[in-house]
Amino acid sequence: MTISITSGFDSGNIRVISISDTEQAVRAELEIVKDLHSDFYQWFHFRVSGVAGRNVELAITNCRESAYPDGWPGYRARISEDRESWRQAETSYAADTLTIRLSAEVNSVWVAYFAPYSMERHHDLIGWAAVQPGVVHRELGLTLDQQPIDLLTLGEGPRQVWLYARQHPGETMAEWWMEGALDRLCDPEDAVARLLRKQATFHIVPNMNPDGSRRGHLRTNAAGVNLNREWHQPSMERSPEVFLVRQAMDESGVHFAMDVHGDEAIPAVFLAGFEGIPSITERQLALFHRYRDTLALRTPDFQTRKGYPAAPEGKANLTMSTNQVAERFGAVAMTLEMPFKDNDDLPDLDFGWSPARSMQLAKDCLAVLAEMVSEI
Amino acid sequence: MTISITSGFDSGNIRVISISDTEQAVRAELEIVKDLHSDFYQWFHFRVSGVAGRNVELAITNCRESAYPDGWPGYRARISEDRESWRQAETSYAADTLTIRLSAEVNSVWVAYFAPYSMERHHDLIGWAAVQPGVVHRELGLTLDQQPIDLLTLGEGPRQVWLYARQHPGETMAEWWMEGALDRLCDPEDAVARLLRKQATFHIVPNMNPDGSRRGHLRTNAAGVNLNREWHQPSMERSPEVFLVRQAMDESGVHFAMDVHGDEAIPAVFLAGFEGIPSITERQLALFHRYRDTLALRTPDFQTRKGYPAAPEGKANLTMSTNQVAERFGAVAMTLEMPFKDNDDLPDLDFGWSPARSMQLAKDCLAVLAEMVSEI
Amino acid sequence: MTISITSGFDSGNIRVISISDTEQAVRAELEIVKDLHSDFYQWFHFRVSGVAGRNVELAITNCRESAYPDGWPGYRARISEDRESWRQAETSYAADTLTIRLSAEVNSVWVAYFAPYSMERHHDLIGWAAVQPGVVHRELGLTLDQQPIDLLTLGEGPRQVWLYARQHPGETMAEWWMEGALDRLCDPEDAVARLLRKQATFHIVPNMNPDGSRRGHLRTNAAGVNLNREWHQPSMERSPEVFLVRQAMDESGVHFAMDVHGDEAIPAVFLAGFEGIPSITERQLALFHRYRDTLALRTPDFQTRKGYPAAPEGKANLTMSTNQVAERFGAVAMTLEMPFKDNDDLPDLDFGWSPARSMQLAKDCLAVLAEMVSEI
Amino acid sequence: MTISITSGFDSGNIRVISISDTEQAVRAELEIVKDLHSDFYQWFHFRVSGVAGRNVELAITNCRESAYPDGWPGYRARISEDRESWRQAETSYAADTLTIRLSAEVNSVWVAYFAPYSMERHHDLIGWAAVQPGVVHRELGLTLDQQPIDLLTLGEGPRQVWLYARQHPGETMAEWWMEGALDRLCDPEDAVARLLRKQATFHIVPNMNPDGSRRGHLRTNAAGVNLNREWHQPSMERSPEVFLVRQAMDESGVHFAMDVHGDEAIPAVFLAGFEGIPSITERQLALFHRYRDTLALRTPDFQTRKGYPAAPEGKANLTMSTNQVAERFGAVAMTLEMPFKDNDDLPDLDFGWSPARSMQLAKDCLAVLAEMVSEI
Ligand SMILES: [Ca+2]
Ligand SMILES: [Ca+2]
Ligand SMILES: [Ca+2]
Ligand SMILES: [Ca+2]
Repeated sequence: MTISITSGFDSGNIRVISISDTEQAVRAELEIVKDLHSDFYQWFHFRVSGVAGRNVELAITNCRESAYPDGWPGYRARISEDRESWRQAETSYAADTLTIRLSAEVNSVWVAYFAPYSMERHHDLIGWAAVQPGVVHRELGLTLDQQPIDLLTLGEGPRQVWLYARQHPGETMAEWWMEGALDRLCDPEDAVARLLRKQATFHIVPNMNPDGSRRGHLRTNAAGVNLNREWHQPSMERSPEVFLVRQAMDESGVHFAMDVHGDEAIPAVFLAGFEGIPSITERQLALFHRYRDTLALRTPDFQTRKGYPAAPEGKANLTMSTNQVAERFGAVAMTLEMPFKDNDDLPDLDFGWSPARSMQLAKDCLAVLAEMVSEI
Repeated sequence: MTISITSGFDSGNIRVISISDTEQAVRAELEIVKDLHSDFYQWFHFRVSGVAGRNVELAITNCRESAYPDGWPGYRARISEDRESWRQAETSYAADTLTIRLSAEVNSVWVAYFAPYSMERHHDLIGWAAVQPGVVHRELGLTLDQQPIDLLTLGEGPRQVWLYARQHPGETMAEWWMEGALDRLCDPEDAVARLLRKQATFHIVPNMNPDGSRRGHLRTNAAGVNLNREWHQPSMERSPEVFLVRQAMDESGVHFAMDVHGDEAIPAVFLAGFEGIPSITERQLALFHRYRDTLALRTPDFQTRKGYPAAPEGKANLTMSTNQVAERFGAVAMTLEMPFKDNDDLPDLDFGWSPARSMQLAKDCLAVLAEMVSEI
Repeated sequence: MTISITSGFDSGNIRVISISDTEQAVRAELEIVKDLHSDFYQWFHFRVSGVAGRNVELAITNCRESAYPDGWPGYRARISEDRESWRQAETSYAADTLTIRLSAEVNSVWVAYFAPYSMERHHDLIGWAAVQPGVVHRELGLTLDQQPIDLLTLGEGPRQVWLYARQHPGETMAEWWMEGALDRLCDPEDAVARLLRKQATFHIVPNMNPDGSRRGHLRTNAAGVNLNREWHQPSMERSPEVFLVRQAMDESGVHFAMDVHGDEAIPAVFLAGFEGIPSITERQLALFHRYRDTLALRTPDFQTRKGYPAAPEGKANLTMSTNQVAERFGAVAMTLEMPFKDNDDLPDLDFGWSPARSMQLAKDCLAVLAEMVSEI
Repeated sequence: MTISITSGFDSGNIRVISISDTEQAVRAELEIVKDLHSDFYQWFHFRVSGVAGRNVELAITNCRESAYPDGWPGYRARISEDRESWRQAETSYAADTLTIRLSAEVNSVWVAYFAPYSMERHHDLIGWAAVQPGVVHRELGLTLDQQPIDLLTLGEGPRQVWLYARQHPGETMAEWWMEGALDRLCDPEDAVARLLRKQATFHIVPNMNPDGSRRGHLRTNAAGVNLNREWHQPSMERSPEVFLVRQAMDESGVHFAMDVHGDEAIPAVFLAGFEGIPSITERQLALFHRYRDTLALRTPDFQTRKGYPAAPEGKANLTMSTNQVAERFGAVAMTLEMPFKDNDDLPDLDFGWSPARSMQLAKDCLAVLAEMVSEI
C-alpha cells in the first residue's frame, strides 16, 4: 500500500505532482493550487493516508511564487490525527520548498496551513449564536456561490461596534477569534460582556468570505477578487460580500471596527490602523493608539514593536476596509493580524499560534474595548 | 425584508421556483433537484432566512415524479434552528405537493428530509475512531470526486463482520446508526463490545457514498449510479465505492453483513434478507431469521410485520449488496431499513425517527449479534 | 516525608494501625472500622498521600472477621488518582490480610472497596432528575441522621414498578446502577423508556441508606440496623428508611420490584427471587424466571449459573425486602446482585466490575422489563 | 404533606424553630446555627422539600446577633433546584429577620448564603489538578477533623506566589475563585499562564479550612478558631491549618500573596493591603497599588472606591494573614474580598455575585499578575 493524498473536502487545497516510495521513506511532491481566477495561493489543506509507521516527507515545491514567500521561513505546518487537536509538524524550508515530515501511528493525518475552520462549523456557530438570548441573526444576502453572508447583532447600547473576519478565507484564525468573541459576548454573567452590551450594539460577521473558505482559497472570493481591495466601490457582481456588509454599516453607522486577519510572515500579533486617511482626527488616532497600547499591556500575546509601517499622511489605501471604514464613518477602525507562525515573544513549540490562543485573544480584545467603550 | 432560501452547503438540495409575500404569510414554491446524471430525487436540505415572527409556507411541488411518491403521505419534514436539535415540522401532503409550515422566533431555519450527516461530521467520526485503542483506519481508495472511502477495522475474533451504510446518500439515518455502532464498539468497558471484539473482526464503512452525500443526492454517486445495483460487477469507472469495498470483502471473507439504509415509505424499522439467492442454505436463512426475530424482542423500535416481500426462490437480484454478499460468501447478510417517517408502533410527535433512535438501534443490533456471534 | 492516610470525608473508612518506612518501600497496616452499633465491616475508602514514586504496600489486617471473608480471595481493590477513573490495583490475599500495592506518579491515591458514590453525587442525581420532564421528586421523610429519603416517580402507566438500591450502603454499584436507570428512563427519545413510561409508573429510591452511605458503613444504618432484615416490621426508631418506603409502596401497590445490591463473594451478576414465600403463585414465579432468563440472553454481563440457593418451599425470610414485597403485593420481586470482584465470564483486568458496567446493566434490565411489562 | 427542611449534608446549616401551614402559604421560622465552640454565624445551607406549587416563606429570625448584621440589608439568598444553577431568591430584611420567598415548580429547593462548594468538589478539584502536566500535589498535614490540607505547586520561575482561600469557610466564592485560577494556570496554551509559569512558582491552597467547610461554619475551624487571627503564632492544637501553611511558606519564601475572601456587607469587589505593618517599604506598597489599580482597569467587576479603611502606620494587625505575610516575607500581600451581595456597579438580578464571576475574576487577577510578575 502506498500513501494517498486527497483534498476533496471543505477548504481542501493541494495538487499531487508525484509520490515516490522507497523502503525507508515516502516522499510526495505537492503544489498548492491557485485561488480560482487569481494568482494568489498559500493555503493548503489535505489528508495523507496510509502513513502509519512510515517516515513521510511532504514537499510543497511551488512556494517561490506563493502570495507571501516570506511566510515560509520559520513556519511550521499544522497536523492533526483526530481533527480536533492540531499540532506543529516538523517543517523545514529550503530551495523554495516547504518540507513537512510525518511519523504517525495512525493511518491518516490531516495537514493544513492553519487549523481549518469549516463552513459546517461556521453554520454551527451561527446556529448556536442565533438562539442565545438577545442575539439577532440576519442573512445579509448571498455570495456568488449562493452561500449566505451571516450577520449577528447583539447589545442595546448607542455605540456601533463592527467585528468582521476572514475577508481572506485562508486566515482561519480569524474565525476562531470570532468563536472566542461570541463565547464571551453571549455569556450572561460575564462582566465585560454585560458592560459592553449595555453600552454598545455589536454587529458581527464571523466569515466575510464563505466562497473562498469552502473552495480552499487563500485570499479571494469565487470571482478571484481580494475583498479587502473592494471597500471603496464594492459591487454585487464582483464583491457582494463587501457590498452587503458596507450597506449594513451605512445603515447602522460605525464607531469602532475591527477587521480580523492572519499574517503569513510576521511572528507576532499586531494591529494596523488608518493613519493615512484624509479626514483623520487626533481623537480618532488617539483612541486607536490607546486601544493598541492597552491591549499590549493586557496580554503577552499582543505587542506593538512588530507590524506594518503606517501609511504616510493622506496616502491611505481607501480600497481597504479599515481605511474606508475609518474615513467613511470617522470610526476607530483597525486590522488585527495574528500569525500563521507563532508569537515569538512567547512561542509554543507544540501548538504554535492556535485556535485556543485566537479565542483567548478575542476575549482580551473585548476586555480592552470595555475599558474604553464609553469614550469611542 | 423577504425570505431567502439557500442550499449552498454540504448536502444542500433545493431549487426556488418562486417566493410570494403577503401581509399574512410567505409562500415559497420549491423543487427538489435530481441527482446528477440521474432521475432520482427525494432528498432536500436548505436554509430559510428572514422568517422570524412570520408564517411561512414551503411548498415542494415536484413530489409526483420523485423516487418514492409513497414516501410523502404521512411524512413530516425535519427542521432545526441550531442545527443540533431536529424536530418534526407541521407538514401536509396533497395534490403532489408537500407543504411545510414554519413559525419560528429566529431568523434562520434549516429544513431537511432527515437530520443531515455532513461529510465534516463523517471525517470527525473517522478521526475520532482512528485513535481509539485497537482500531485501524484504512483508506480503501478515492471516489470519482476524489473523496476517500474510509474503512475501520477492530476486533480480534475469527468471524468477519461487515457493517456498511449510506450506499444511498440521502439516507442519513444510516450514518447516525454507524455513529451509535462505533460508540458502542469502541467502549472499553461495554460487555457486548468486549464479547464481540473477542469473537469477531469488524469491518466498518460508515459512508459508502461520500460523493452523493456532499452533492445532496438521494440515491446515486457522482456518476448518477445507484451503488446498490452494482455489486455483481462494480467498476472503478462507474462505482469505485462498491469496487473497493467488495475487493476488501474478498480479502477478509464475510460471515455476517449488514447494509444500513433508510426507507421512504414504510413507517417502521425492518430487515430485508437474501431469500432468493441461488446457493441459499437452511442454516444461513435460519440465522437471519433468528437475528431478525431476536431483534424484534429486544427493542420496541424494531418489528417484523411490515417490510419488503421476500424474493421467490432463485429470483434474488444479485446486483444488490445483501444478495451478492450472501451468495458470494455464504454470509448471513441483511439490509436494515429505518424510516424517514417514524416507527408507527411507538411514534414520537416531536422528533419522529431520529439520530438518537438510529444510534440506539445500532447498539441494540450489536447486542443481538453478541447473542449469536459464536454461531454465525 | 512519610505517607499519610486519611478517611475524613464522605463514606471514608479506615483505621491506621502502623506505618513503617524503609528505603525501598512503605508498608501501612490498616483495619477496616465496624459499622456503628454493629459488627459488620468490609467497606473501606481512604486517601493515601505522599506516595509519588514510591512502592507502597497497604495491608488490611482484620479481614478474617469481616462480614464476608469469602469476598477477599480473588478480589482487587479499586484505586483512582483523579477520583473519576477507578482501576483495579495489584491486590493479594493471604493470612487473613488483603495487601494492596501502589506505585503512583502522583502524590495522592484514593483507595476504595468499590468506586464510591458520594451523598453529594446522590443529591446531584436527584437534583438533575427532579427537573426532567414528567419526573416528580418527593422526600418521604428523614433518617436518624436527618438525611432525606428521596423518591422519584415517573411514567403514566398502570403497572407499579419499584426500583430501590443501596439498602446496604457499601454496595455503591447499586447507586451507579440507578444513575444508568434514570439516564435511560429520562431520555425523551429512547424507545424502551417511552414504552415503559406509557405502560408503567416507576417509583425509584436511588439510595435507601444515606446514613450508612455517608458514615462509610458496609451494611447498616446509623443505628447499626441491617435494613434488609426489617421489611416485616420496620419502625421509625430503628429503620425509618424501610418504614417510609414500605408505606409508600402500600399506597401505590407493587407489580414489579427490583432491589439492587452488590455481592462480596460471587464473581458474577445474578438475580435472587422469592421462591419460599407462602403465597407464591406459578404466574409470579414464571414471570421472574422469564425476566431472569431473558436478561441472561440479552447481556454477557448477566448469567444464571452462579447465585444464591433458592429458599425451600415456605421458608422464605420475610424480613427481607424481596420476599416481603413479593408476598405483600403478589409482586414479581427480585434482588439484583452485582459483584465487587468481576464477572468472571467476561473479566476486565483494568476496571473489574465498574460504574460503567453497572449503568449499562441497568439499561439492559429496563429493556428486558420493556419486553414483558404488559404482562406483569 | 407539609414541607420538610434538612441540613444533613456537607456544609449544611439551619435549625428549624417552627413550621406553620395555612391554606395560602407556608412559613418556616429558622435560625442559623453558631460555629462549633464559637459565636460566629451567618452561613446557612439547607434543603426545603414539599414545596412544589406552594408559596413558601422562610424566615431566618436570628440575624441580629449574626457576625455581620450589615450583611443582611440588600442581600438576596441563593437558591437552586438542580444544584448547578444558583439564582437569587426574592429576599427581604426587616426587624432583624431575613425572609426568603419561594414559589417553585419542583418539590425540593436548595437554599444557601452563597452557592456552596462542597468538600467532594474540593477533592475533585485537587484530583483533577494533581494529574495536570507540571502540577505537584502535596498534603501538608491533617486538620483536627483529620481532613487533609492540600497544596498544589506549579511553575518553574523564581518568584514565589502564594494563593490561598477560604480561611473563612462560609466564603465559598473564594474556592470558586480558586477553580477559575487553576483552570487558567493549568491551560497549556494560555499566554498568561505560560508567562506566569515561566517567571513564578505558584503555591496554591484552594481550601484553608476544610473542617469549617464541611461543618457548615461561617468563620472558624473545628475548634471555633478564626484562622485569620492566628498567623503570628499558629499551633497544631488550635490552628494546624495556618501552622502547616505558614511553615510551607517559610520553606519557599513569598514574593506575592493573595488571600481570597468574601465580604458580607460591601456590594463590591475590593482589595485590602498591609498598610500598617512595621517594615513596610515604598516599593512594596507601590506594587500593591499598581496591582490594585490595574485590576480596576481590567475588569468592571473590580473597583477601588469601596473597601476597608487602611490601618494607620504601624497599626497593622499581625495576627492576620496578609499583614503577617507582608511583614514576614517583605511580600506584596493582599486580601481579595468578593461580595455575598453583588457588585453594585454592574448588578445582575438573576445571579448576583456568582461562581462564574468569581472564576472569571480569578483569571483577570492572574492576568494582572502577569503584567507585573517580573517586578514583584
Ligand atoms: Ca490578511
Ligand atoms: Ca435505501
Ligand atoms: Ca447486599
Ligand atoms: Ca473573610
